[in-house]
Amino acid sequence: MAELDALLVTNLVNIRYLTGFTGSSAALLLHADGDAASVLCTDGRYDQQAAAEVPDLERLIERSGPLVLAGGAGARGVRRLGFESDAVTVEAHSGLVEAARAVALHRAPGLVQQLRMVKDEAEVAVLRAACAFADQAFADLLAAGGLRPGRTEREIALDLETRMRRHGAIGPAFETIVAAGAHSAIPHHRPTDATLHQGDLVKLDFGALSGGYHSDMTRTVVLGPPAAWQRELYELVAAAQVAGRAAALPGADVAAVDAAARTVITDAGRGDDFPHGLGHGVGLQIHEAPALGPTGTGVLAAGMTVTVEPGVYLVGRGGVRIEDTVVVCDGEPLLLTRTTRELLEI
Amino acid sequence: MAELDALLVTNLVNIRYLTGFTGSSAALLLHADGDAASVLCTDGRYDQQAAAEVPDLERLIERSGPLVLAGGAGARGVRRLGFESDAVTVEAHSGLVEAARAVALHRAPGLVQQLRMVKDEAEVAVLRAACAFADQAFADLLAAGGLRPGRTEREIALDLETRMRRHGAIGPAFETIVAAGAHSAIPHHRPTDATLHQGDLVKLDFGALSGGYHSDMTRTVVLGPPAAWQRELYELVAAAQVAGRAAALPGADVAAVDAAARTVITDAGRGDDFPHGLGHGVGLQIHEAPALGPTGTGVLAAGMTVTVEPGVYLVGRGGVRIEDTVVVCDGEPLLLTRTTRELLEI
Repeated sequence: MAELDALLVTNLVNIRYLTGFTGSSAALLLHADGDAASVLCTDGRYDQQAAAEVPDLERLIERSGPLVLAGGAGARGVRRLGFESDAVTVEAHSGLVEAARAVALHRAPGLVQQLRMVKDEAEVAVLRAACAFADQAFADLLAAGGLRPGRTEREIALDLETRMRRHGAIGPAFETIVAAGAHSAIPHHRPTDATLHQGDLVKLDFGALSGGYHSDMTRTVVLGPPAAWQRELYELVAAAQVAGRAAALPGADVAAVDAAARTVITDAGRGDDFPHGLGHGVGLQIHEAPALGPTGTGVLAAGMTVTVEPGVYLVGRGGVRIEDTVVVCDGEPLLLTRTTRELLEI
Repeated sequence: MAELDALLVTNLVNIRYLTGFTGSSAALLLHADGDAASVLCTDGRYDQQAAAEVPDLERLIERSGPLVLAGGAGARGVRRLGFESDAVTVEAHSGLVEAARAVALHRAPGLVQQLRMVKDEAEVAVLRAACAFADQAFADLLAAGGLRPGRTEREIALDLETRMRRHGAIGPAFETIVAAGAHSAIPHHRPTDATLHQGDLVKLDFGALSGGYHSDMTRTVVLGPPAAWQRELYELVAAAQVAGRAAALPGADVAAVDAAARTVITDAGRGDDFPHGLGHGVGLQIHEAPALGPTGTGVLAAGMTVTVEPGVYLVGRGGVRIEDTVVVCDGEPLLLTRTTRELLEI
């Protein structure tokens, strides 16, 4: 913001982060002079909600908020107006340029996302609650015998989501994955009417949405005593996850964190069967910066919340993923998802 | 497409429409020479899913799909490459320009959205099923006495969503609105722990997601015998909705359809209390083209599926919205949502 007089924020998640406004239509002129010079624009559906959620900012009720704010920026003393070039489309940009007239538009990608990476105590508290809802729902599901042969993946997904909501979640943080048997080898499997069978690996990847924040956890269980290959696969992924968590320290390069876990899997000859990054930031979005992957850039800092989720998938047989949401700290990261990482034999 | 050799499709909903691929990461080079020259790119998480869902297209497994496809377009004989300028951000565009090198990039906004507006029979069948799940869930909720004083808005929202899923929905089509008493005057109210009270207007806006398609319906009921003002408000909105539906004919200007309903409300002196458009297209997205509003442009055509949803909101007292999902036809539009539009006294 140093060289800008104001930033036109059009990414709704960023607007929520900066102002607390949760409606689905908004634009924010964030003035370098502070709140008194800033203004939030939303449409008529959200008039009352904006007044309740953002009482201290000037509010405008208009359609085409970005154009209205860009058009009015000059009258607010703005000469250099930043815009979120990673959110504004090429088409929308043309409209902004026209609306802004004498005000110069400058690309300003990722400024708010950078702020969002490090969570403050209040945010960690909300994330902790979201993670607890997922932990509790999973414990309830197990206690109720919810993972048994004959039930369908879809039934279990609904069951898990309903339990998270009963504990206080607004809803699932993303489309719940329940993948049984050979389906567990599909990293992002969508639940089907296929039923669970004795001997199956069952992979469950789910999270709770609460207060705008997302939790993310994966556990893989086995129905009955595990076969030798299942136990071996599980232990490999568990070892990689331990290595990944241990490497997630302040100052660590994100690619090095990925490598710490990936090496364990590669050394076992399974590198090709781990086709995704180790993890991602999580917060107001289920996937946000930083990305922990082989091609990621940047370093971790205390207060970042990320997932650590190695997986190995054997096509046609089954796969294992173990995932936690953690807070980067001095020393080992803090686990927000608390469910055991031992192989559960159901 | 007439002047383009290929279109680089990066809008995931458009990719689903064109190919059937449902993963969360993809790019498609849609070649003017047809499927044999086209290619879908996704990442390693979706390798198996892409093979199952898109068996007949060439598939690439790469990160940064848009860049890879733009970079390889020249080798596929593409000289003029269209891109979705209403989906590609300013930042991403810079990367595309660099990757495309000698291939000329051309703005091509909304091409696929235009195709998506008119639904074919198979799409209408899926939408009909999604609407039926919502109708059935609402009927079940009423039959179970689910709308009674003392229950919270959140409980009812969860109840309704669970019932939709039991009938076969993948999940809710959007965040369910349950708004009781004065909350019903907030057009887009998010369910709270507030309880229903005798005498309340209760507004429920909900829909089911099924096969990728969304249904959308709003009903407003009253707990007990309605007060005179409640009945009057309801009848006003119901009359506006009838007028709006009657105007939703092939060839009708979308602004004229909005006006047909809006005039009824304005003539009653309530124009300021109807702060949103009359409706919107609905399909693979909950909000898609065409927009039926005062500033909308374009005309309706047979096969478009749209919502018709006038509302009047009296701040601090209560509001009424009545919404259906309809298919534009010769003659009156076909109602896909079938729940009665009479005022229900619970």
